[in-house]
Amino acid sequence: RRGEMAKATQLINNEVFRAFATYAAIVLLKMMLMSLITAYFRVTRKAFVNPEDTATFGKGEAAKKFLRTDPDVERVRRGHLNDLENIVPFVGIGLLYALSGPELSTALLHFRIFTGARILHTFAYLIPLPQPGRGLSWAVGYAVTFSMAYNVLKAAWLL
Amino acid sequence: RRGEMAKATQLINNEVFRAFATYAAIVLLKMMLMSLITAYFRVTRKAFVNPEDTATFGKGEAAKKFLRTDPDVERVRRGHLNDLENIVPFVGIGLLYALSGPELSTALLHFRIFTGARILHTFAYLIPLPQPGRGLSWAVGYAVTFSMAYNVLKAAWLL
Amino acid sequence: RRGEMAKATQLINNEVFRAFATYAAIVLLKMMLMSLITAYFRVTRKAFVNPEDTATFGKGEAAKKFLRTDPDVERVRRGHLNDLENIVPFVGIGLLYALSGPELSTALLHFRIFTGARILHTFAYLIPLPQPGRGLSWAVGYAVTFSMAYNVLKAAWLL
Repeated sequence: RRGEMAKATQLINNEVFRAFATYAAIVLLKMMLMSLITAYFRVTRKAFVNPEDTATFGKGEAAKKFLRTDPDVERVRRGHLNDLENIVPFVGIGLLYALSGPELSTALLHFRIFTGARILHTFAYLIPLPQPGRGLSWAVGYAVTFSMAYNVLKAAWLL
Repeated sequence: RRGEMAKATQLINNEVFRAFATYAAIVLLKMMLMSLITAYFRVTRKAFVNPEDTATFGKGEAAKKFLRTDPDVERVRRGHLNDLENIVPFVGIGLLYALSGPELSTALLHFRIFTGARILHTFAYLIPLPQPGRGLSWAVGYAVTFSMAYNVLKAAWLL
Repeated sequence: RRGEMAKATQLINNEVFRAFATYAAIVLLKMMLMSLITAYFRVTRKAFVNPEDTATFGKGEAAKKFLRTDPDVERVRRGHLNDLENIVPFVGIGLLYALSGPELSTALLHFRIFTGARILHTFAYLIPLPQPGRGLSWAVGYAVTFSMAYNVLKAAWLL
């Protein structure tokens, strides 16, 4: 049992893997935060989608008028979906990249730029900043993930 | 070759990793089930979104009337998207957590509560149960993932 | 340090893991490609969702008319969401499967069929091909992921 445990925790002792774990946890927590922001806007804007969510506002027509879309709610939801579309590839490809034996400094560069770009992307989407703010922050994160994928394929290629 | 294979399968011999693999597979299968439920409601409610999907109902106006949204279909789709938003962080953070060397009993507690909460969430969404049933089951899964992320960051922190 | 690095890169020396890394990177890149196709259709069809994205078309009503949905854009977005719903389980379950010690030939069979099916699915969705083209390619990928999940649960089962 002890020996096995030691083997299993080897990965977490590796610096590149520790860096990946740190940044992956941060961007996944950032993505999870979008749920709370959506809930906040749904409650403050009184804009719900499920009839059972408006039951506290009374019955019938009184409650029905809160079953509506709100621009702020929809904006956060788009940001959330964009996170899913971009953070999922980062976590998947990033894990493989971290296990492909890159230099710590190169790996940190990838993880830091991606994380910074996605945090900027969220601000750019929610404030919102004029374009190309959101577009550029999206493209930077995309390019970082692409670079990691290239390195994974170079190291692992077995078709 | 044999030696390498043995090394690669070490992880699956570790009990915490085996527990994670079991629960991650269960929640991912549960998420995949939402596709089948969506398909079931699309067919029984005759509510499709792609014109090519209604071709069996004839041509022109006869088929066009089945290109519509249905409340039951939309409800399952929202449940599916909510799964993506919550099960993706669980799988990503949970893997890092399983590799960070937690006690088996603590890890099992996290995995079991999350899995139970997400199964409850699906029932709460699809029946639907009155609030706060769905809200609470969502919050429990969210809190478990947050707790695992805290443990990952404590064990791995390298910024 | 060197020793640790060697341990961490053991996985990438394992052939099943290398095969998984290759196919996971390919399907994740394919999924990322959907973002570019969406952007391409948004620009060529002039169909945007965020007001700040239409600022280059002028102010007020001149720009507002480009805040609209377009069938081609919506089609790509549905394909993208379907990728998320199916490629996320493949990457999660596939990683656990690759670590559960399968035969290389069996693993390659799973990875290749899934990857082929998802590439076909994208073509079937975007062209679009008549049904059951898209339905079958979806079902094949689904069945492959299910088969891997069965093998993971058989090897890891610890509830």
